[in-house]
Amino acid sequence: MKSGIGIAALVNIPAIVSAVIPGSSERKNNHYPMFKRGSTILFQGDSITEYGREKEKELPNNAFSIGPGYVYLLTAQLMKTLPNRELIIYNRGISGNKVFQLANRWQKDCLDLKPDILSILIGVNDYWYLRNGMYDGTVADYERDYRALLNRTKEHLPDVTLIIGQPFVLPNTEAVDESWIEPMKGYQQAAKRVADDFNTLWVPYQQVFNEALKYAPANYWTTDGVHPSVAGTQLMAEAWLKVVS
Amino acid sequence: MKSGIGIAALVNIPAIVSAVIPGSSERKNNHYPMFKRGSTILFQGDSITEYGREKEKELPNNAFSIGPGYVYLLTAQLMKTLPNRELIIYNRGISGNKVFQLANRWQKDCLDLKPDILSILIGVNDYWYLRNGMYDGTVADYERDYRALLNRTKEHLPDVTLIIGQPFVLPNTEAVDESWIEPMKGYQQAAKRVADDFNTLWVPYQQVFNEALKYAPANYWTTDGVHPSVAGTQLMAEAWLKVVS
Repeated sequence: MKSGIGIAALVNIPAIVSAVIPGSSERKNNHYPMFKRGSTILFQGDSITEYGREKEKELPNNAFSIGPGYVYLLTAQLMKTLPNRELIIYNRGISGNKVFQLANRWQKDCLDLKPDILSILIGVNDYWYLRNGMYDGTVADYERDYRALLNRTKEHLPDVTLIIGQPFVLPNTEAVDESWIEPMKGYQQAAKRVADDFNTLWVPYQQVFNEALKYAPANYWTTDGVHPSVAGTQLMAEAWLKVVS
Repeated sequence: MKSGIGIAALVNIPAIVSAVIPGSSERKNNHYPMFKRGSTILFQGDSITEYGREKEKELPNNAFSIGPGYVYLLTAQLMKTLPNRELIIYNRGISGNKVFQLANRWQKDCLDLKPDILSILIGVNDYWYLRNGMYDGTVADYERDYRALLNRTKEHLPDVTLIIGQPFVLPNTEAVDESWIEPMKGYQQAAKRVADDFNTLWVPYQQVFNEALKYAPANYWTTDGVHPSVAGTQLMAEAWLKVVS
């Protein structure tokens, strides 16, 4: 079984993102009409989004302030593809954050930046810290807090375009085993309900990673089942770009 | 003139790399046959290659050890595209290096790693430090040292595939003015002679950046005329991938 996958993967280039998100990923004339001239794009989330970014200057469009994760990969692609769009791209992910911790810093780290486009990926810590006994919020708290956060955002920024990422985990890894799957589905379904009710774009990261498992094991795409590897950050960036294109 | 460029760029997606390096950049079935299963790929150079990478662990295939520059962008692309190729990718660029300083650390930082593929981008400091009076090596020293370095490399690693990058600068920037152009051509021609004589692959970064200037000014593609911006790192990564594809 395993060597069969290996041989197939050597012959066939994986169309991982395309297999999950319909539409051609090879469009040559993608103008990304969602991004207007001077649009501010803000990325929010936990360590997956933070990815070791520098947090003193927090500059837009700067490799170090963005950190070497999926946000940098998609920023580089957008900045190169749209050189006259004058995009302003911030990363404000912070390691360990759960949804209520986004709320605690939302004025400074979101509303004050007045994003035109806001991309949020949050949820794995809401479950992980509960599982570890370091937090007592439930999936119901997650959903309620997420809805409150988006209501507050829409109140201050009625024209903001919202993008919600599906929280994901990959079992058979250092941090994650099969017992995570069912409880994480609860958080994934909650995030999807929020995305549907707020009419946001939706990036199905879990589905993309599941598809990627056809080509290499979980330890190839993530470092521990929660954090993406270099290969995993590329998957995430491609998925995000495809959703916004 | 300038607003005319701006309008054209909004309507036409720049095919910058394709305009310089022939061949389709959108090939869906690029198997990168140059990279065998388990190939070790080493990137060498100065700060453009280093790009703030962590230098304690210096792990392969690790976002922090690779740093958020062009090496990370192309590594992410290769790791995602070739999940079963088991590539081992190192960045060993060090800020400020001239070609003789590569030689000083070549045993540890190149020969001991036994790369199958070795990509070198070096030269801008050989000129910059000469210009600043902090170094007295000439373009002849650069070429002689470069040839000696590659002879030594081929002696120890006769089967290594070599890739040489064209050193580049962009004037009308913080660090670079028009008076750099002619002397830098000397270093670029020397690097090209070395590449031709050693039958290496050649990445024409200067030509790629020159093409990019049709779409946005030098300060968009570099931070100071020497170091690439986020958009510039994407240009470099795409150019490199195209050359090896």
